[in-house]
Amino acid sequence: MRYHKIPDETVRRLPVYLRGLMVSADQGHEHISSQSLADFVGIDAWQIRKDLSYFGDFGTPGVGYHIEKLVRGIKRTLRLDAVRTAALVGVGDLGSALLAYPGFRMYGLDIVAAFDIDPKKIGKAVSGIVIEDAARIDTLRQRDISLAIVAVSRTAAQPTVDRLVAAGVKGILNFAPCKLVAPKRIKVITLDIAMELARLPYYMPRAEQVAET
Amino acid sequence: MRYHKIPDETVRRLPVYLRGLMVSADQGHEHISSQSLADFVGIDAWQIRKDLSYFGDFGTPGVGYHIEKLVRGIKRTLRLDAVRTAALVGVGDLGSALLAYPGFRMYGLDIVAAFDIDPKKIGKAVSGIVIEDAARIDTLRQRDISLAIVAVSRTAAQPTVDRLVAAGVKGILNFAPCKLVAPKRIKVITLDIAMELARLPYYMPRAEQVAET
Repeated sequence: MRYHKIPDETVRRLPVYLRGLMVSADQGHEHISSQSLADFVGIDAWQIRKDLSYFGDFGTPGVGYHIEKLVRGIKRTLRLDAVRTAALVGVGDLGSALLAYPGFRMYGLDIVAAFDIDPKKIGKAVSGIVIEDAARIDTLRQRDISLAIVAVSRTAAQPTVDRLVAAGVKGILNFAPCKLVAPKRIKVITLDIAMELARLPYYMPRAEQVAET
Repeated sequence: MRYHKIPDETVRRLPVYLRGLMVSADQGHEHISSQSLADFVGIDAWQIRKDLSYFGDFGTPGVGYHIEKLVRGIKRTLRLDAVRTAALVGVGDLGSALLAYPGFRMYGLDIVAAFDIDPKKIGKAVSGIVIEDAARIDTLRQRDISLAIVAVSRTAAQPTVDRLVAAGVKGILNFAPCKLVAPKRIKVITLDIAMELARLPYYMPRAEQVAET
């Protein structure tokens, strides 16, 4: 079977298409053209057609893609067709926001455990999840939780990742703005929010722009 | 002058290189090869060389890129060479996390204003910023703040964006998981955190994988 054959950049865009398709289905549409999807998600139509060709082409000329089939195909490709459980480490402002965030379920992801080292937080419930002592991260293996979200400080991030890896976690979404070391078989995605904001000024005119052009 | 000539995908990666280069400079390095940078940031070396060629090649064969020059070049390209001020709208859990987040300064970005509609929050200070009534968003134009971060609920996002645009904001980083409408000249980046997590299962083996291969 094909495995790890789709380029990372395409894997990055598939969830974007998925969201666009699900919203379009909610609006009652059955089919969508690559151009309509392009307008919706802000990615070029040729790029969409190329990306979707990697895992099977469900489009019909003149009609477009069958939304429901495409949603199923993308979900299967991204392995979102079954619900996966995830653990959160670090229940500060960001961690609390993540626990309250309803969007994860839409992608078949369910945060079922949360850890912190602060004795004042341990035992309290946030968005229905009781915060556990971070010393209990080791229990993730027997609880069959293989995804984790790291929302701890920069200095605590690497030790946290080491513990998660030791506890059998296979995929980590990290919010700490630092480089993390993990074995090759573990997929670590670092999401540095400041970096996203850093892309914006590029698209804004400089004050002196008018004089220069 | 060149403007909007660099592909969006490259603009997306430049901040990633920038972070890698800045960390490398902090570690005392003067030069870096595309391969070392590739290992550091997790992007292919050929992709890095291609991306950097868009805005001028600062590399020397056998020596690599001059880190300081490259940092300056990327910052200039991304227009991060001057400090830009930004406003935050929505001081919930996520908004509070963003106000407390030190990473923005690293990219020449400074959150100097925060707005909310909750009377209990207005007038209080979070991370040194006094929260203002969202009705005062109109004042952004005279305060010369042209970047905004939207961390409000899904239903409040579009009206918030409309007000920001009317107040002269040119770039918006949106955290609400929804499609937003804005004039073409306004750059809107939506960061759906769930979508990032949705990429992880793809990289994880299925339970039945062992039997199939």
